[in-house]
Parts: sequence; C-alpha cells; structure tokens
Amino acid sequence: MSRSSIDIETMEDAVDAVASRRESRRSFLRNGAVAAVAGTLLSACKPVAASERAPKTVAKATPPVSPPVAFGVDDVSAASIAAADEMDRMHEAGIKAFPAASKGRGNQLLAPRIERGVKVFDLTARRMQWETEPGKVTEAWAYNGMVPGPMMRVRAGDRVRVNIKNELPESTSIHFHGVELANSQDGVPFITQPPIKPGQSYTYEFVPPNHGSHMYHSHHNSTKQVSLGLLGAFIVEPRDSSEEPHADVDHVLILNDGLNGFTINGKGFPATEPIVAKLGQTVRIRFMNEGMMIHPMHLHGMHMTVIAKDGWAQPQPWKCDTLNVAPGERWDVLVKCNNPGTWAFHCHILPHAESEHGMFGMVTALIVK
Amino acid sequence: MSRSSIDIETMEDAVDAVASRRESRRSFLRNGAVAAVAGTLLSACKPVAASERAPKTVAKATPPVSPPVAFGVDDVSAASIAAADEMDRMHEAGIKAFPAASKGRGNQLLAPRIERGVKVFDLTARRMQWETEPGKVTEAWAYNGMVPGPMMRVRAGDRVRVNIKNELPESTSIHFHGVELANSQDGVPFITQPPIKPGQSYTYEFVPPNHGSHMYHSHHNSTKQVSLGLLGAFIVEPRDSSEEPHADVDHVLILNDGLNGFTINGKGFPATEPIVAKLGQTVRIRFMNEGMMIHPMHLHGMHMTVIAKDGWAQPQPWKCDTLNVAPGERWDVLVKCNNPGTWAFHCHILPHAESEHGMFGMVTALIVK
Amino acid sequence: MSRSSIDIETMEDAVDAVASRRESRRSFLRNGAVAAVAGTLLSACKPVAASERAPKTVAKATPPVSPPVAFGVDDVSAASIAAADEMDRMHEAGIKAFPAASKGRGNQLLAPRIERGVKVFDLTARRMQWETEPGKVTEAWAYNGMVPGPMMRVRAGDRVRVNIKNELPESTSIHFHGVELANSQDGVPFITQPPIKPGQSYTYEFVPPNHGSHMYHSHHNSTKQVSLGLLGAFIVEPRDSSEEPHADVDHVLILNDGLNGFTINGKGFPATEPIVAKLGQTVRIRFMNEGMMIHPMHLHGMHMTVIAKDGWAQPQPWKCDTLNVAPGERWDVLVKCNNPGTWAFHCHILPHAESEHGMFGMVTALIVK
Repeated sequence: MSRSSIDIETMEDAVDAVASRRESRRSFLRNGAVAAVAGTLLSACKPVAASERAPKTVAKATPPVSPPVAFGVDDVSAASIAAADEMDRMHEAGIKAFPAASKGRGNQLLAPRIERGVKVFDLTARRMQWETEPGKVTEAWAYNGMVPGPMMRVRAGDRVRVNIKNELPESTSIHFHGVELANSQDGVPFITQPPIKPGQSYTYEFVPPNHGSHMYHSHHNSTKQVSLGLLGAFIVEPRDSSEEPHADVDHVLILNDGLNGFTINGKGFPATEPIVAKLGQTVRIRFMNEGMMIHPMHLHGMHMTVIAKDGWAQPQPWKCDTLNVAPGERWDVLVKCNNPGTWAFHCHILPHAESEHGMFGMVTALIVK
Repeated sequence: MSRSSIDIETMEDAVDAVASRRESRRSFLRNGAVAAVAGTLLSACKPVAASERAPKTVAKATPPVSPPVAFGVDDVSAASIAAADEMDRMHEAGIKAFPAASKGRGNQLLAPRIERGVKVFDLTARRMQWETEPGKVTEAWAYNGMVPGPMMRVRAGDRVRVNIKNELPESTSIHFHGVELANSQDGVPFITQPPIKPGQSYTYEFVPPNHGSHMYHSHHNSTKQVSLGLLGAFIVEPRDSSEEPHADVDHVLILNDGLNGFTINGKGFPATEPIVAKLGQTVRIRFMNEGMMIHPMHLHGMHMTVIAKDGWAQPQPWKCDTLNVAPGERWDVLVKCNNPGTWAFHCHILPHAESEHGMFGMVTALIVK
Repeated sequence: MSRSSIDIETMEDAVDAVASRRESRRSFLRNGAVAAVAGTLLSACKPVAASERAPKTVAKATPPVSPPVAFGVDDVSAASIAAADEMDRMHEAGIKAFPAASKGRGNQLLAPRIERGVKVFDLTARRMQWETEPGKVTEAWAYNGMVPGPMMRVRAGDRVRVNIKNELPESTSIHFHGVELANSQDGVPFITQPPIKPGQSYTYEFVPPNHGSHMYHSHHNSTKQVSLGLLGAFIVEPRDSSEEPHADVDHVLILNDGLNGFTINGKGFPATEPIVAKLGQTVRIRFMNEGMMIHPMHLHGMHMTVIAKDGWAQPQPWKCDTLNVAPGERWDVLVKCNNPGTWAFHCHILPHAESEHGMFGMVTALIVK
C-alpha cells in the first residue's frame, strides 16, 4: 500500500494539508508528540516546535526541501501501522512523563552531627516499600528509608563515625568500599567483626586517608542485600580542595540491576532524575556500579572526560562518549556543557534501556539550558 | 587401549606407514585437513605442508625428533574416538569453508551525492532476508539492503544530509552515535523529533564537528531494531588528515550479538571476511559494538596498539592482544603486521566463537602475506 | 519485639553482662565467630579479639560509647531471627574453614628439562576428578593432573619446547595466548596444525620474543575444554630482569567460571589460597581470565597499581581497587602492603562470590602480617 510521508523540514507548511488527509487519531498522536517535548521538564530546555526542529542549517543556506512524497511500502499493512502507532503511543507516554514523580528519593545528602570533632552519621537499615517507577512498588532493604541510602560526604583526615541500627530480619554489616581504613572497620562478618544481628546496633569509626568517589554497602548476604538497596555513596573530599577540578554541578549516578530492576539512583525511567546544567557549565558525574552487570553509559551530544577511577586520578584525562562501568567500579568524569538541549543519557546495553513499550530502566537525560 | 601416535614433525616420513595402519576414513580426513589449509583463501598466506609446518627452529638446530610413539590411553574407547573424529570433521569443514560465500555483504561504502556542497546520503530501511552464514537465513531490518548498513565516511566540517525512507512496519529514527551534532538532529523520538512513521521519510542535516569512528543506528524500539540490523559505521575523518596515523589497510569491525546470532559485520564464521595485509603493512581496525554483550576481541600472533576510544585519541597509545569492547563503544587500534601467517582473530568469550561443531560466530582472521 | 544490642566498642566491658542475658546458642555462635577469626590461617594475620577490634581511634580520644541499647524492631519475628542465626552459622562456617584443604592444587611451577639448551616442558592432558571445594568433586580435563595446568616460566629469547600427550577422548591443541610466536606454532587446528587426536602426542617449539603474563590453553572445542580446565599460566620474563618492577611476592590469579563453577586457580572459596605478605612488602598479582564472563576483582583495604595489560607495560601506571578482567585478558598489578590485616579480595559481581549460604566461588584474601 501507499502512504503519504512527511519530511520534517516542511511539516509546518504541510501540516494543514496533511491533517485533512489523515485519520484523526494519528493526527492527535503527532500533536501529542509536540505536547510531549513541550512538557514540564523538557520545556526547561526550550524544545522547539516540530517545524522549528528542522535543521537550522537548512534554513537559508540550502534550497527548499522537496514537499512530502509518497512512496510504496509493500509490506506495511494497516494492522502493522496500527501496531506501530500503538507502540509509538507508549513510547511517547514514557517520554512525556519524564521526569515522573514517584514516592521517595534516594541518595540524599546526610549532614553529620558533630560530636567532639567527630562527624557522626546515623543509619538505620529496615525493610520498606520502594517505588522504582510510577506504580511499580517493590520490597527494598534501605538505609534511612531511601534507595540508594543517604550520601555521606566527608573530607580526607576527618574522623568519621557511622552508627548503624539493624532493623532487618537478617544480620548485616557495612563495608566502606574504596576507603583504606583500618582492618577492624572493614565490615566483613567473621573476618573483621561479628555480624550485626537483627535488633543490634554497631559503630564504625575511622579516618579516611584517601579521597575519592567511594561507596558503602552491606557485606553480608550481599548478593541479596545490596541488590535490594543497602548501598550508598561515600564521597571523600581531598584535604586540599584545590586538588579538585572545578565543577559547577556534582552528580552521583549509582547504577543497580538487581531484584528491583535496572535503576539509576534507585529509580527507573521515567522516574529517574535528569541532570540539569547551564550552557557553559561543567558537570562532574560520579558513576558507581552496585549491580551485577556492566553498564556502558552513553551520553548523547557531548563527550565525557574521564578523570578518576575508584577515586584515584587517572594519570592523564581521556575522552569518551560511552563509559563501561563494571560492578564495584567508580569513574569520575567531567562534561563541558557546550551543546544546548535535552540529551539522552543511558546504558547502551539496549535491553537495559528500551523495550517495545518504550524507554525504561537505565535512562536519564543531561539537560543543557 | 593403546593407539599409535604421530608427532607432526615426522608426519611426512611416517605418512605411508601410518596410512597402512589406519582405517581409510581417518586417513582421508587428515589429507582433507591438508587440503583445507591449502584452500582458496588460506592459500593466500601460503600455508606450508604438514611436514614443513614442523617448527622451523627444530630443523637443523636440534636433533631429529623421535618417531611416533604409542602410549596407553586407558579411558579412550573406540566409540569416543569415532566421536572425536566426527567432531574434528565438523571443525575442519568450517575452517575449509572460510571465507565462505554468502548472500549479501554489509558495511559497504556509500558514496554521497553532492548537492550544492552538501554530502547527501540516501537510506531506506526495510525488512529483508539476510544470510548470516551459509544456509542460515533470517529476518533482518536493514538500511539499503545490507547488514550492517552502508558505511558513510565524511570529513569534520562537511555539511552532511542523510535522507531516510522508512519502509519498515514500525516507526524508526536514526541516532548518530558519537557525533556532537545539534540537539534537533540527535534522533531520539519524542525528545528531539517525532518518530518516523512507516511510509514516511525524514532528513537529518548537520556539520560533524568531531572526527572519529562513530556509528549510526535506530533509536526507536532499539533493542529490537538495532539487534535486527539497523546500524552502521559513520566515520568522520579529521579536517587535517595529517592528524591521522598512517595505515595501509583501514578495516571497520562491527560486532553484534542479537536475534541474528554472534556476528562480525553481519556475518558469522565461516562467512566472515578476513582482513588481509602484506608483511610490514599497518592495519587500522575500528571496533564498534552494536550488541548487548561485551566482546573481548583477541588477535593471535601480534599485538594491537590502541590509539582511540569513541573517536577520541587516547592520551598515549597502549598495547594489548585482547581488547574488551563494550556495547556502544568504539576502539581504534593499529596492528603492525610483522608476523606472516593466517592468524585467528575472535571474541574470547569462547561460547561466542566455538561450539562442539566447530568455530562459528565471532571469528575471523588476519592474514599477513 | 525488643532485643538487646551490642556496640562493638564496648563488647569487652559488656561481655559478662551480655552473656547472662542471652540464650546459650547465640552466645556459642558469637564465641564461634571469635574462634573463626582466630583460626589457622587467619591467626597468621594476628586477628585481635573482639574487644580489641574496636576502633583504635575511639579508645582514649573519644568518650565512652553508650552501653548496648535495646530498640524496637517491629517486623522481626522469632522465626526470622532463627533464620538469620542459621544463615550466619553457614556464613561463619565458610570463613572458619578458609583456607580449606582440598585435594589437588593447580598452577604449580613446572621446572623444565634442559635438552641441548632448550627448555622442555612435558604435558599430558587427561580427564580426572577435581575437587573445587571441600566435598565438591567434578570432572575436569587437566594438564598434568592439575587445574589450572602447571605454570611454565621462561625468559624472552629462550628456546622452548612443549610436548603434549593427548589422553583425552577428544582431539585437542595448545594455543600460547599472547606469545608472538611463528604461525606454525599457534595451535589452531586446521589453520596452523592438524588436531592432536586422542592417543597422539605433539610438540610445539618456539622462541618467545615478547615477555609478559601470558597463558596457554586448548584451542580445540575450547568452550568445553578450557571450561573444564585445559588452561594454565605461561609467564615470559623479560631478557633483562631489571626491566621488571620489584615485587616481594609474585602471585598468578587465574579466573574461571565454566562448568566447574566460579574459581580462582581452580578452587572456589573456602578452598582458595590466600595471598600472604609482610607489612611493607610489594605483591605483584597477575590476573588472567580464562572464563566466559567479566570478573571485576575488588581488593579491600589497599589499592592496586596497574602496570601491564596482556603483558605490555601500560604507558603510565594507574590506580584502582576494582579491576575489571575480561575473558582472555591479563592484567598485572602491584599492591604495596601498607595496611595490616586480612583483606577480602573477591569478584564484585556479588553472585560470583556470596550466596545466602555464605561466601563461595571467587573469594580469597590478601593477608598482610
């Protein structure tokens, strides 16, 4: 069968003519698409209307693009077109919803209490219900009621105390992954401490000597406990902050892929949080993988400059647009936000990011205003 | 039971004696093996006869190697020997067939039309039947009737236009993976453009600012569409070609692992294409992973010098023989072909490369003449 | 229900009081935990008693920590506490057993015979029963009765001869992975040699030009044969040993994940072998992945300095605590052992290292005395 087609460059001119030639439903959907990109968050990046979205470079420099032409598509049936439209409707709904509201927000900064010069953090581990995306509620095991657990930020040389109350039905422990602390504080049951039984509390105390993007997580029955949410960021700033590269935005991005699905900071798309920066700003992203699989994170439109691995400066920065983050690894990158727009940012293992029903899981966006 | 054995070094001398002691079938197979390595393509690398294949270093420098000795193998039954011979026969058949003819060849260079200074590429996406290896025909979704789609090569600073006609039963879009183009041309439905419906055409136009080994692929229902073949190489040469290292051979190697099996440039072994170079030449290989799994590519006999990641020069080149290529990544390497022979070149996740029936999937060869 | 809890800092003071307040079984288990860390191997690192394990920094510098406090745990039932205790018992038993005796030890150095200046190694490939962890006996295919096969160490420029007798029920071959030898010695059946049939022997001879941490393994029906154990380390020292960095301990760590489970040097935890060093010493670890999956190896307490990839020096050393090792890759790292204690060292794909029954598989320890 033959269908008319539309070149986006001429959509503005052609829209009236086209509207009359098409069934109302598809017309509705296309308008919906425009509404989508003009929606709440995406409006922040000033998406242009479909007609304006035609390549700027075409405008005056090139002759007018041909009007829509019809071409034969032999194997496209009415049924498959309806199925394609239905697929697009679901894809559109996901994008329109982004960033979707969901109950609970993980990875929030936990301010320490200062007790006689010691930075004290209080954690409670407990089972809870966690909404990973709108309407998808699942059992999580969480520190302080959030997944990931609260972000702790200290400085190298600080004395740090972490109190943990175990209200889980299992024993637990905390390993400060990447911090070169005394063996007694390493958090491995039966090697460096007894397990923390249900109903017990326990205290870790140490002076982190090495700065960097570290993590903390359960080291007991960890395949289950970390998968369910007992993990978080533990950032150690250098003693001399002039050692740090300048960044206008500092964003921690914790990947997980366990029992609660493919998540970034505890949420799956469209409930993931976009990273927002102004044109010209530098964003620092601290990737942390607490899952069981690699996640090669791909940023559209701009490259990432890799500056550190597991908290240690790389000997020389290097550039990429797809960074393979393996379980247990942390990578720090800088993005110079010199390209305005809403840029998809996702795991490039495509089944972690998109299904026939649209984007899900490990997808977010970097919005450069 | 006891069986006589053969040291390869003395096979020439022993062959008559052996022939009389062995059943005709196995003798036939061994001769077949020699025929195999002397076959069409492999003859290019001048394989030597079995007797000559004995280590050269042994020839004069060391005393004659012992004649064949028999030793007892208690647990080897006649049945298992027959099974081993049958296995070898299948393995041999695969090698003999390499490089096997198959219908269709992907990744072929597409010359642009020049329209008023713009390099214009025309793509049509359509379903088709694709032969991944001899006799294995499967449904592919392809650009211009090939998997991978045609290779586009432009220069940084060129104005580029890509017209896409969608003759698929689903909507689609194209993302130019790695190219830092304007947001409107980024190819993400409902974020930067409407989906391209079945029967519609669409035009991308941009001036690629950053050179390197990039890719283009569908960004709509991509888990399926990319897996089925909607992908290709998009190579951006630097403005100043003196920035590029010298290479005598430039070979793009696109890895995929989806619904159509483990493939290199759309084909599984023995239908994969060998890389051929003369002794002393430098081969540049541009690895691109469009699949869902890592593929650590192992080159026999020579090392690879890694020069770029995702199109960006590494701060310093580094060497390896096994390069882990993750989904979405591109790695550029140079191989100085200083070791003559036919060198296996394969993914070192062995189940991606060999089964009990012989080599398959992600296996090719670098032939240094 | 309410349960009393224990802060580790006050365990010494509180232990008598606590003992009287607890059921004998749990008290027994806790004592067992102390016994565990004081066990054979772990005693080597002088683990301190529970009370001493309290953070040293707390001792005088901070005020006494509060005595154990009871807090309410609403959702913890007696049944779940019993289940948690039973889980802990299993976890403890694994740790206590480490390093567990098991039959057979792989990766043992094979001294060559010297024949007219040639270093000659004799290998026999045969089926056998192999104990991967106490009581878990499985079929292995092994060189010289061990998994991994014997370690061969030569020097670049040495003339090396490897004799292989095939007593397997299948044909086989050996590929010297990473060594840039003559094509005739590359070990790929039907490309560079005939397969070595059951009951046959074969000889490889070459002069390795490039030093580094290499491997040897079957290149015939390799998905099965390598998985079952036909693999080993092939270390080539540089001609000039002053090129090598100083190391007090040199440890090869071969990862596998095939039919015989997740193993380090052929054993799963607790039958894995710890790495032992004295405070201040430098340990060199040569990671080799002969499996089908990545294994990001995480060292607790100290970082690793990466010096080589596939035997080739990295342009500049770089630091990490989690090193992603892909199939076929080798990575050489140095660890400066400046932090005393028993440090867990494991694959950070947690299901490769811990189940509800405790640690297993790819777990060992670096013990700094």
